[in-house]
Amino acid sequence: MSQAASSPTDPSVQAVVRADALRTAVATARSLVSECRVRLDSDGLLVAATDPATVASVRVTLDAAGFEHYDASDTTVGIDLDRLADVLALGDPDDLVSLTIEDSRGLLHVEHADLHYTLGLIDPDAIRAPPDPAKLDFDHAGRLTLDAAFLSRVVDASEMVSDHVTLELGAEGLRAVADGDTDTAVVEHDADPETTGEATAIYSLSYLADIVAVLPSTSVAVALGDDLPVELDYDFRDDHGHAEFVLSPRLRRT
Amino acid sequence: MSQAASSPTDPSVQAVVRADALRTAVATARSLVSECRVRLDSDGLLVAATDPATVASVRVTLDAAGFEHYDASDTTVGIDLDRLADVLALGDPDDLVSLTIEDSRGLLHVEHADLHYTLGLIDPDAIRAPPDPAKLDFDHAGRLTLDAAFLSRVVDASEMVSDHVTLELGAEGLRAVADGDTDTAVVEHDADPETTGEATAIYSLSYLADIVAVLPSTSVAVALGDDLPVELDYDFRDDHGHAEFVLSPRLRRT
Amino acid sequence: MSQAASSPTDPSVQAVVRADALRTAVATARSLVSECRVRLDSDGLLVAATDPATVASVRVTLDAAGFEHYDASDTTVGIDLDRLADVLALGDPDDLVSLTIEDSRGLLHVEHADLHYTLGLIDPDAIRAPPDPAKLDFDHAGRLTLDAAFLSRVVDASEMVSDHVTLELGAEGLRAVADGDTDTAVVEHDADPETTGEATAIYSLSYLADIVAVLPSTSVAVALGDDLPVELDYDFRDDHGHAEFVLSPRLRRT
Repeated sequence: MSQAASSPTDPSVQAVVRADALRTAVATARSLVSECRVRLDSDGLLVAATDPATVASVRVTLDAAGFEHYDASDTTVGIDLDRLADVLALGDPDDLVSLTIEDSRGLLHVEHADLHYTLGLIDPDAIRAPPDPAKLDFDHAGRLTLDAAFLSRVVDASEMVSDHVTLELGAEGLRAVADGDTDTAVVEHDADPETTGEATAIYSLSYLADIVAVLPSTSVAVALGDDLPVELDYDFRDDHGHAEFVLSPRLRRT
Repeated sequence: MSQAASSPTDPSVQAVVRADALRTAVATARSLVSECRVRLDSDGLLVAATDPATVASVRVTLDAAGFEHYDASDTTVGIDLDRLADVLALGDPDDLVSLTIEDSRGLLHVEHADLHYTLGLIDPDAIRAPPDPAKLDFDHAGRLTLDAAFLSRVVDASEMVSDHVTLELGAEGLRAVADGDTDTAVVEHDADPETTGEATAIYSLSYLADIVAVLPSTSVAVALGDDLPVELDYDFRDDHGHAEFVLSPRLRRT
Repeated sequence: MSQAASSPTDPSVQAVVRADALRTAVATARSLVSECRVRLDSDGLLVAATDPATVASVRVTLDAAGFEHYDASDTTVGIDLDRLADVLALGDPDDLVSLTIEDSRGLLHVEHADLHYTLGLIDPDAIRAPPDPAKLDFDHAGRLTLDAAFLSRVVDASEMVSDHVTLELGAEGLRAVADGDTDTAVVEHDADPETTGEATAIYSLSYLADIVAVLPSTSVAVALGDDLPVELDYDFRDDHGHAEFVLSPRLRRT
């Protein structure tokens, strides 16, 4: 009677994964977009997206090895991330979730525990294309690895005084400076042995806050260049998941 | 000086009960109404009420044996449930609560710990009469016992796609199906050895959500019939408390 | 480049204190005002303030001995309490916080962990003067010591029925009575061996609620007199902190 009652026929993707891995991937992409293109091939799952103003972009991958079961012919689908996040929130993080894509019928079947949810897919051509990865390869002057919690403090302190923050990388480490009318907030991070280079750039706090809100509690590699986009890289789910944010700078008042 | 300063004289009810039992009884009735008739006789306390649109009704009983002390001549009073819930929320769930009804003065005295709250009673004739129990006796085709948590999942999943849900009882168990424009949510429950009968009916999710929100974490007996009201029965407070909801179906599109 | 980059020169105050002590002092004063005068001298820190309607006043002190380090020449500054509370909320309660006041530049430097926040001071003359302590010395008829939790119950129960509460002190202890149109709430506290005197007065619940909300879980000494302001006294932070609220009565209907 209902669509869900019929068994999927000839699925292009059949995969099983722990709910928390998929939740993290979905939450990461949702920091910038509410619907996106998802590519599934023999390597695994890839979400690439850019926000409506093309200020920030994100790439999230979940390796095939990170799935309990993974069988995908090369396919790209469009997914309503808000809806998928709601479905995943109904179960426990430790649940195994089964994903079945029926390209021909435009359906994604999500099953966990006693729930069978059938989600209508979106035509991927109707979704903003992600940026060309080649254009996201910048000549960053320096790099630093830090805890995601540090970036949370930068956002919290800076938002008290301004809508943007200056990141200054130097031999002593990273300084985040937000200047307001009466107040100034500075958050500092020591250099690590591998810290290199010098660079200064200004970023919008509203974008940075959206990104920082979805970082898992992990180490994040930060790459900076003078007035260049900042790149944030990190792994999740036992290194089977990987995320990369690129956030464009604001113009510096000179 | 104040009313509370005077000792109750010639009370028609004098009872002591654990706060959590009374809280559960009050919360159950509040899922449908904000004021109701409460009958107290030698058997115990009975609340029977129907919502303003007469779509759903509820009967809650708390046996005299479930009280620490219970002494009631047969009396029916009208109570503002929102107010009583607020008073009970001031204490601990393990508190003993003393209830004294002075019919002649129209007062309910609620005492727990250091608080003495005097609540003005409502004329029971000014409150919508509960339905005749005889009219709530349906010829249900089948029954199933399940955890309250299952019904929560049915409501959460179904609300994502629709404002109503179809319950289908069969030999394999219970299926809850919500069909939306693009998505479908199905939550399934296996049959138990005592599952009998077949039935299908559609219910409003807003009513079901209000009811499910007050279910304690317990087993609930569900009785269904084709296009008949669904009945939910369960015990609480060591079987001294009992609740029974009856929810009318929506018309099926045929 | 930024103000914070420059080291403070010739500070008038240099102090280090645990964040939770300072948080408590700030939260206490914030119950009545959002900006206030803070005096720092060799004895320690003193905040004295009165609310805009001059119905309630507060004095908070933090003894020099309660600081890890304390070096202050006599100075009075104006501080935006909302802002300072936000800065302190960024760190852990166990953090040590460094405070440096540069009177000449009108700056308060707050440092904890990796954060250096520079807060612009307010001209103290632009802030409502606190009341003369001599005018807060009342001839109270009686006193009683009770837990802050009792006052929370008084506020919660009384707010259900009225916007004011009558406090009645007598040989048997303290009664808080709130009379509404249909309901009455009475909360009672036994006398303690040192309870003395008799007194009755009425207080605004909105003020009392604001005050009670910031009380730490501690013993509070209450002093009452017929139609006199009530005084609430308590220590915090191992007796190095002290707070005193004075709340004016409402007129009694006679």
